[in-house]
Amino acid sequence: MSELKWVYEFSASFTEGHRGMKDLLGGKGANLAEMSALGLPVPPGFTLTTEASLDFFNNQGKMRPEVKDQILKSLQKVEKLTGKKFGDTDNPLLFSIRSGAKVSMPGMMDTVLNLGLNDETVLGLEKQTGNSWFAWDSYRRFVQMFANVVMGLNSSLFESTLEDLKEARNVEEDSLLEVDDLKRLIEFYKQIILENKGQIFPSDPWEQLWQSIASVFQSWNNDRAFKYRELNNFSHNWGTAVNIQSMVFGNRGNDSGTGVCFTRDPSTGERKFFGEFLLNAQGEDVVAGIRVPGPINDESKNERNKSFKTLKELMPEVYGQLEVFYKKLESHYRDMQDIEFTIERGQLFILQTRSGKRTASSAVKIAVDMVQEGIISKEEAIFKVSTDQIGQLLHPRLDPNTVKDIIGRGLPASPGAASGEIVFSSEDAISFKERGRSTILIRQETSPEDISGMIASEGILTARGGMTSHAAVVARGMGKPCVAGCSNIIIDSANKKLILSGKTYKEGDFLTIEGSEGLVMAGTVPTISAEVTEDFAVFMKWADTLKKLEVRTNADNPQDVQMALKLGAEGIGLCRTEHMFFDPERILAVREMIFAENSEKRNLALKKILPFQREDFSKIFKLMESRPVNIRLLDPPLHEFLPHSENEQKDLSIHLGVALEKIRDIQKNLEEFNPMLGHRGCRLAISFPEIYKMQVRAIIEAGIESKLLGFSPNIEIMVPLVSDYKELKKIKSEILKETEDIFEEKGEKISFQIGTMIELPRAAIMAREIAEEASFFSFGTNDLTQTTYGLSRDDSGRFLPDYLGQNVFKEDPFVSLDKEGVGFLVSHAVKEGRIAKPEIHLGICGEHGGDPKSIQFCHNIGLDYVSCSPFRVPIARLAAAQSSLQEKK
Amino acid sequence: MSELKWVYEFSASFTEGHRGMKDLLGGKGANLAEMSALGLPVPPGFTLTTEASLDFFNNQGKMRPEVKDQILKSLQKVEKLTGKKFGDTDNPLLFSIRSGAKVSMPGMMDTVLNLGLNDETVLGLEKQTGNSWFAWDSYRRFVQMFANVVMGLNSSLFESTLEDLKEARNVEEDSLLEVDDLKRLIEFYKQIILENKGQIFPSDPWEQLWQSIASVFQSWNNDRAFKYRELNNFSHNWGTAVNIQSMVFGNRGNDSGTGVCFTRDPSTGERKFFGEFLLNAQGEDVVAGIRVPGPINDESKNERNKSFKTLKELMPEVYGQLEVFYKKLESHYRDMQDIEFTIERGQLFILQTRSGKRTASSAVKIAVDMVQEGIISKEEAIFKVSTDQIGQLLHPRLDPNTVKDIIGRGLPASPGAASGEIVFSSEDAISFKERGRSTILIRQETSPEDISGMIASEGILTARGGMTSHAAVVARGMGKPCVAGCSNIIIDSANKKLILSGKTYKEGDFLTIEGSEGLVMAGTVPTISAEVTEDFAVFMKWADTLKKLEVRTNADNPQDVQMALKLGAEGIGLCRTEHMFFDPERILAVREMIFAENSEKRNLALKKILPFQREDFSKIFKLMESRPVNIRLLDPPLHEFLPHSENEQKDLSIHLGVALEKIRDIQKNLEEFNPMLGHRGCRLAISFPEIYKMQVRAIIEAGIESKLLGFSPNIEIMVPLVSDYKELKKIKSEILKETEDIFEEKGEKISFQIGTMIELPRAAIMAREIAEEASFFSFGTNDLTQTTYGLSRDDSGRFLPDYLGQNVFKEDPFVSLDKEGVGFLVSHAVKEGRIAKPEIHLGICGEHGGDPKSIQFCHNIGLDYVSCSPFRVPIARLAAAQSSLQEKK
Repeated sequence: MSELKWVYEFSASFTEGHRGMKDLLGGKGANLAEMSALGLPVPPGFTLTTEASLDFFNNQGKMRPEVKDQILKSLQKVEKLTGKKFGDTDNPLLFSIRSGAKVSMPGMMDTVLNLGLNDETVLGLEKQTGNSWFAWDSYRRFVQMFANVVMGLNSSLFESTLEDLKEARNVEEDSLLEVDDLKRLIEFYKQIILENKGQIFPSDPWEQLWQSIASVFQSWNNDRAFKYRELNNFSHNWGTAVNIQSMVFGNRGNDSGTGVCFTRDPSTGERKFFGEFLLNAQGEDVVAGIRVPGPINDESKNERNKSFKTLKELMPEVYGQLEVFYKKLESHYRDMQDIEFTIERGQLFILQTRSGKRTASSAVKIAVDMVQEGIISKEEAIFKVSTDQIGQLLHPRLDPNTVKDIIGRGLPASPGAASGEIVFSSEDAISFKERGRSTILIRQETSPEDISGMIASEGILTARGGMTSHAAVVARGMGKPCVAGCSNIIIDSANKKLILSGKTYKEGDFLTIEGSEGLVMAGTVPTISAEVTEDFAVFMKWADTLKKLEVRTNADNPQDVQMALKLGAEGIGLCRTEHMFFDPERILAVREMIFAENSEKRNLALKKILPFQREDFSKIFKLMESRPVNIRLLDPPLHEFLPHSENEQKDLSIHLGVALEKIRDIQKNLEEFNPMLGHRGCRLAISFPEIYKMQVRAIIEAGIESKLLGFSPNIEIMVPLVSDYKELKKIKSEILKETEDIFEEKGEKISFQIGTMIELPRAAIMAREIAEEASFFSFGTNDLTQTTYGLSRDDSGRFLPDYLGQNVFKEDPFVSLDKEGVGFLVSHAVKEGRIAKPEIHLGICGEHGGDPKSIQFCHNIGLDYVSCSPFRVPIARLAAAQSSLQEKK
Repeated sequence: MSELKWVYEFSASFTEGHRGMKDLLGGKGANLAEMSALGLPVPPGFTLTTEASLDFFNNQGKMRPEVKDQILKSLQKVEKLTGKKFGDTDNPLLFSIRSGAKVSMPGMMDTVLNLGLNDETVLGLEKQTGNSWFAWDSYRRFVQMFANVVMGLNSSLFESTLEDLKEARNVEEDSLLEVDDLKRLIEFYKQIILENKGQIFPSDPWEQLWQSIASVFQSWNNDRAFKYRELNNFSHNWGTAVNIQSMVFGNRGNDSGTGVCFTRDPSTGERKFFGEFLLNAQGEDVVAGIRVPGPINDESKNERNKSFKTLKELMPEVYGQLEVFYKKLESHYRDMQDIEFTIERGQLFILQTRSGKRTASSAVKIAVDMVQEGIISKEEAIFKVSTDQIGQLLHPRLDPNTVKDIIGRGLPASPGAASGEIVFSSEDAISFKERGRSTILIRQETSPEDISGMIASEGILTARGGMTSHAAVVARGMGKPCVAGCSNIIIDSANKKLILSGKTYKEGDFLTIEGSEGLVMAGTVPTISAEVTEDFAVFMKWADTLKKLEVRTNADNPQDVQMALKLGAEGIGLCRTEHMFFDPERILAVREMIFAENSEKRNLALKKILPFQREDFSKIFKLMESRPVNIRLLDPPLHEFLPHSENEQKDLSIHLGVALEKIRDIQKNLEEFNPMLGHRGCRLAISFPEIYKMQVRAIIEAGIESKLLGFSPNIEIMVPLVSDYKELKKIKSEILKETEDIFEEKGEKISFQIGTMIELPRAAIMAREIAEEASFFSFGTNDLTQTTYGLSRDDSGRFLPDYLGQNVFKEDPFVSLDKEGVGFLVSHAVKEGRIAKPEIHLGICGEHGGDPKSIQFCHNIGLDYVSCSPFRVPIARLAAAQSSLQEKK
C-alpha cells in the first residue's frame, strides 16, 4: 500500500516537482521546483500540496499525522543540506512559510518569515551571524508577524508600541534603536499577545510551524481571498499549497546583498542584461526606496547611480554566476525574465524568476528579437505581446514621469491622451482650430452634428453616454482620445463653462484627457507620442499569417479608409451611409427629403443627394480596390438629421419656402419616445422605398464607374434592423429591380451581394428564414446588446457604474460581448443561418469587433470576419492570431 | 386494378361523401353530401375532387379522359334522378358549376349558373316552364356569365348593351323588357364575344361544361385567390373541388319561391323558428332587397311584414317539411343553422345550411339553451361563443342602425364606443366632468400624469402610440374606449383644437370614438349599452370548470380590483405600484424622493410615501382575501414622475426650497434618450436600494395588518426588468433582510413569494440561472416584444400601418404574441426555468394575457396563469377553456 504523498521537496540536489504541477504545488511551489531542478541555487525547502489543504478543510481543520510525518522527514533533509538545525540554539534553521495557489492571488493570503526564532534560538542566530541587532530585530519582526498572521492581532498594536519607544528614545529610524530596546519590545509584544488573546506566544518552533501552516491554509478562506476568487471566477475548491523554505539573509554585512535583474531592458526591449542591487540589505529595503540601489553592470547605469560601483566590479564571481543563470532562465522560460536574487556572505541565491513586465514597444522588440535569435517560435511570439500593448502603441500617452492633477474620471471611451483649451460647441472647436489652437470639445453627449467639431478638436469629453455612445464610437473611429460619461461634471454650455471637482473651468482653460483610463486632468500634461516601428510591422505580419479571421474596418470616408488600410484592414465591414448626410453641402437636401409631403417631392430631394453619395462611394471603391466593401443602407431615425438650432430651422424654412412654425410642427411630430426602437433602419424603407432606391443607385453607379476605370469593386449591400425575413425579401426585390434598371441604362453590369445586419434578438432567432434571403450576416452587436439587455448605450452611463461597482455585472456588456446572453443569440443565428445556407458569410461589425475577448468568441463560433474602427485593426489582427493559436493548443 | 376516383355523387338516393371529407370535396361539396345523406331534398349533383384540380394543374391544364368518363357517368345518373336530359331540346337539364375549396374563400373564385342553355335548349326550358321571359332571361344571363367567367370578358361590355336597350325601350327594370328584346340581347352578346375574343360562344352544352370546369379550376390560381391565401396562410397546394349540381328555380310562378330561415332567432337567441321568403323569386332577388320578403310564420313577423301571409299559411305542407328539416339540421349539426331553401312548383329543395351568424348575446343564450335542451355538451357550448363576442358583451357599442360620419381611423386600442365634447388636457377633462359634461380626451399620447383626466373622460383619442401604448393599456384597464395612433390627426393643444380630414374641431365640439374598430366620428352617434345576463354567468362558469389556466387580472386600485373580481378574476397577476405615485397627495413626496441628493434625504421622502402605499395594499389585500396578489416593485424611470408644467415646477421649487433653475437642471439631467431601455425597473434598486425597501415595507406591513384582521393575504413580490440572476439575487437578499426586520419589529410573520418579470430577451435566455432565485416568472410580453423586435410600442404607430398594409407583418405583435420570435424566448424560458426549478410558477402579465390566440399559446407551452385587464378577464376565461378543450381534441 503506497502512502499518499503530501510533501514535495526542492533543492539543488533533489527536487520532486516541476512547473507543470501548479494544480498540486501552486504557482510558487511549482516554480521553486523548476528552478531547483534547473540547478539554480534556490534555498532548499519543500511544498505542502494543495491537496493537503483540502484534506485539512475536510478534516475540521486538523492535519493528519502522516502529513506531519512527511513534513518532519523533509525538514530533516533541509537541515542536512543547510547544515543548520530547526530550533537549534547554536545554529538555528529558520523558515519562511508562504501560501501559493495555482494562480497568483497577490496579497490575498498570508506569509510568515523567520519562523523558528525564540528566546533561545535568537541567541544562536546572534552567534551564527555575529550581528546582535540583526538577530533581535529579526526576532522582533517575527513575533509581530506571527501575532498578526497566525494569532489574528492587529499590527497597529505593535506599531504604536514601537513608535512610542522611538519617541521615548528620540529616534526616527528603527535602525537607531539599541539591541536592548529590541529585547524590551519583544517583551512588550508578548505582553500584548497575552493581554489581547489570553495566550502565550509559542516559543516551541514546531508549535510555531504547525500553527503557521494551519493559518496559511485558513487564509485561503478569508474574506479577501474569497471575494477575489468570486471576482475572478476562480474555484473555491482549488485550495492552496504552502511553501516552507529555508531563510537566507542579504543583510549580513557587505559580503551580502539583494537585487533584481532583467534579462533584457524592460523599457526599450534591447538585448542587454540589466539590474540593480543593494549591499547588506533585504528585499524590502530595495522596495522601500530609501537607499539608491547600485547598477549590476555598466549597461545598467543611469544618471542617479553612474558613479556607484557595479556588482560586476564588487563581486565578479557572483556576477559571473548571475550571468550564467539569467541566460539559462531566459532560454528555459522562453521569455524575458525578472529575477530576484540574494547574496548571503558571498553566496548567491535565486529566490524568484518570472516574466518581466515591459513597455508596449519593448514587448514587440523582445518578441521579434527572440524569434530572430531562435529562442522562440513565431507562434510563441504572438503571445508575448498583449492586445492592450498594441493599443498603447497606436496612441499618444501621458508622460509617466509627470505629476497629474486628476480632477475627474469617466469611461475610457477612446484611448490616447490630449490637451487643449476647452470649448463647448462644434462651431467653437472649428473656429479655435482655424486660429491654430488645440481644443478639447466638451459636450453633454455628441450627436452626428458634432462630427466636424470632433474632427477639429484634439479630444472629446462628455458628461453622458457609455462605451458605445456616439462620442465613444466616433472618437475611436477617428483615433482620438475620448472620456465619456464623466457623470459628475456639470456643463453649462450656454455660458461656456463647466464645474468639476468643485472648480469652474471656462472656455479657453486648459484640460488634459486620457482615454485609456478615463482621466480628466487640469492644465496641460505632457504626452509621449505613438511610435510604430519596423519590429511592429514584422510582428503584425506574423499575426496575419497565423490568424483565421479576416479583419475588416468600420469606415465611411476616404481618410478613415486610408488609415485603416495602413493599419492592415482587409476590407470594410461597415460603411455607414448616414455620416455622409451631415456634410453642410448636403444636409439641406437631406432635410428637404425628410420634409417632403409625398413620394414625388421626396424623389426630387433624393436626386440632389444622389451625386454626393455616388462620389463618396467612388472614392472608397478606388481606395479599396478589390477588397470587400460592406455598405449599410440608411439606418438612423430621420429626425437625427433635423435642424435643432433656431438658425438652422430658419435656413430650412427659407430653403423650403415653408413657414417656420410648420417646420417646427413637423419636427415635433417626428420626435420619438425611444428612437433606438423607432422608425429607423429598414423600417424607413418599408415606409419610404425611395430612400434606399437612391442609395442603391449611388452605390451601383459608383461601382460601374470604378469598374470602367479598371477597378474590381467588391460590393456588399447591407439592410439594417431586419426583424423578419419578409422585410429583407421585399427590400431585396426592390434593390434588384433598381439595379436591373441601372444595368440596362448603363449597358454595364457589376456583381454585388445583398445581406443583412443581425442586430435584433428576433433576427437572431429567425436566422434560418432570414438566411434564405441573405448572402451574409453582419452581427450588429451594439444594438443586439442594447435590445437583449433592454439597455440603452446612451443612457447606461448613469447606472452601469453602480452595476460594475457592486459586481452585479462583471463587465460593461458594450465593451466585451456578453457570451452567455447576447452570445447565445449570435451562436444560435450562426447555427441556424448555416443550416439554411452553408456558404453564408458571417461577420461582426459592432464595437465588440475590436475587443480581444469578443474576437476570441467570434473565432470560436466560426465567424468569417470581424470589423472594427481603424485604430483597433492591429489589435484585432493580433487577437485573431492569438485566438487561432489558442484553438490549436 | 381499381380506378382512381375523381367524382363523388350526392342525391337523396345515393351519396358518396360526408362532411368529414372537406380536404377532398371542399367545404361546399362535403356539406352537400352531408345534407343529401341526411335525406334532405338537395338538388342532385356531383363533386369533382380537389385532387382532380391538382391533377389538372400538373397535366398542363388538361383533364384526363378518365375524369371526363366519371363525370359523364355521374351526370347520367342525375339525368335519371331528375327525369331531365342535359342538352335536351324538350326537357333540358341545367347545372350550376361552383368552386369549393376546403376552406371558405368568399368571392375569390368563380361560379357559372344555368349551364346547358343554347338556342335549342332554351326552347325546351320555355316549354318546360311555360315561361318564355324566364327562359330567355336565364339564357341571356348565362351567356353573360359564361363570357365573363369562362371567356374572361368584362361584364360591363354586356351591362352597357343592356342599359342601352333599356334606354331605347324607355324602361327602368329588366323585367319590363320584352322577350324579343331578350333574344336580341343574346344576339348582341354573342357578337360582342366574337368581336372581343375572336371566338364563337360555344353552343354545345358539353363544351360549355368542360370549359366551365377548366375555368373554375383555373380560378384557384387567379390573383385575388392567390393573395387571399397568402394573407390567410392557406396552402396553394390544396386545390379546389368543383360542384356540378342540377339547377332548381324558385321563379317559376306563385307555387315557387325562395327563402332563408334560422333555427333560432339570430338577434335574441330565442328558441323560435324564424325566416323570410319571397314567392316567385330567385336567391338574388332576396339579396337585392327590392321586394319585401314575407315571414315564414307568425313568430317571424315584424313591423314591415306583419300584414303579409306567412309561408305556413300559403304552403302549409312545404312549411311542415321545412319544420322537420330545420330540427333535423340543428340537431345534426348541433348548432343554430342558417338554411337556404327554394320551392320549385310546390317542391321544397334545401340548397345550403350553415351555422347562423348571431349577435353576441344570442350566441351565449343559444349555447346555454342547447346544453339545457340536451342537444350539445358543455364542452361543445364553449366553442359556440367566440371570445370576440364575449368582448362585445362587456362594452357599449355603436347602434348599428345609425348613419356614421367617419372622419378618421386609428388603432382599435380599447373596445367600446363613447361620445363627448373634446378636451385637450387632463385638467379640462376634470373640470368638464365637474360641470357634468361628458368628454373625449384628445392627446398626442398619454402619460401617467393623464390618469386622472382619463378617469374623468368617456374615451381617449391619441395621435401617437400603438396597441400597447400607455393610453391603450390604461384605457383597457379602465374598460374605456380608446382609439390610439390616429396618425393623420393634427393636434394643437395650445389652441385647443385639432384638424382631421381637413376639418377643424375645437374644444367642446362633439366627437364619437369606437375602440373595437378604431373609428373616429363627427358628432354624437347613439350607442347600445353592455348587458350581462344570467346566461352569461352560467356560460362563464362552465368555461371555468373546463379551463386549465388560472385567469388573473392586472389591477392596482380597489375599483379595478372589484371590477375584476366581478368579472371572474382568480388573482392579481400584476399590481403596478407606480400608478399609486401620481395621486396629487403623494406626487410631491415622490418628487422629493427623486430630487434627494443622498440616501438620507431619500429615506426621509420615502417615509412620507410609505403610509400611502401601505394603505393601498391593505385595501387590495382585503378585497382579494386569500387570492394571490402579485405586486411589481417600482418599474418606470424616475423622470416619469417629474413636474412638466412650469406651475408644477414652481410648486416643487417652493416645497423643496430649491431654486427653480436647479429643479430644471436636475430634471434635464434625468432625461433619457431611450427611457424604455434606461434607468428603470430593478436598475433603480441597484442604484437606490431605499426605494424597494420602502415598497417592501409597505407590502409586508399591509400584509401583517390584513392577517391580524383575519385575512390570509397571498403575496407575491415581483422584481422587474431583471437581465441577470445577480440582480435578482442581490435585491432578493435586501427584501429578505427588510422583511426579517419588520417581522421582528411587529412580532408577527407572514409568508410571501419573491419572483421576477421575464421581459428582456436576456432574462429569457438566462432563465435557468434566474429560476434558482425566483419562486415565479411572470412574462412581461409587452416589453419582451419591444426588445425582441427592437420596436417601441409608443413609436410604432407611425410605421406599423405600413407593415400591416404591405403584409410585411401579418399582425401587430403587440396585439397577438409573436409565436416564432417572442414565443421562442418564452418557450425557452419555460423549459429552462423548469429544469432549474420544476415547481416554479409561470404566468404572463403582458397585454397578450387578454388575447385569445396568445392565451392558446400560453396554454400550449404550459403556463400556469394569464393575467389581463379586468374587462378582458371573461375573454381570457373563455379562451383558456377553449384552449384546454382544443388540446384534448
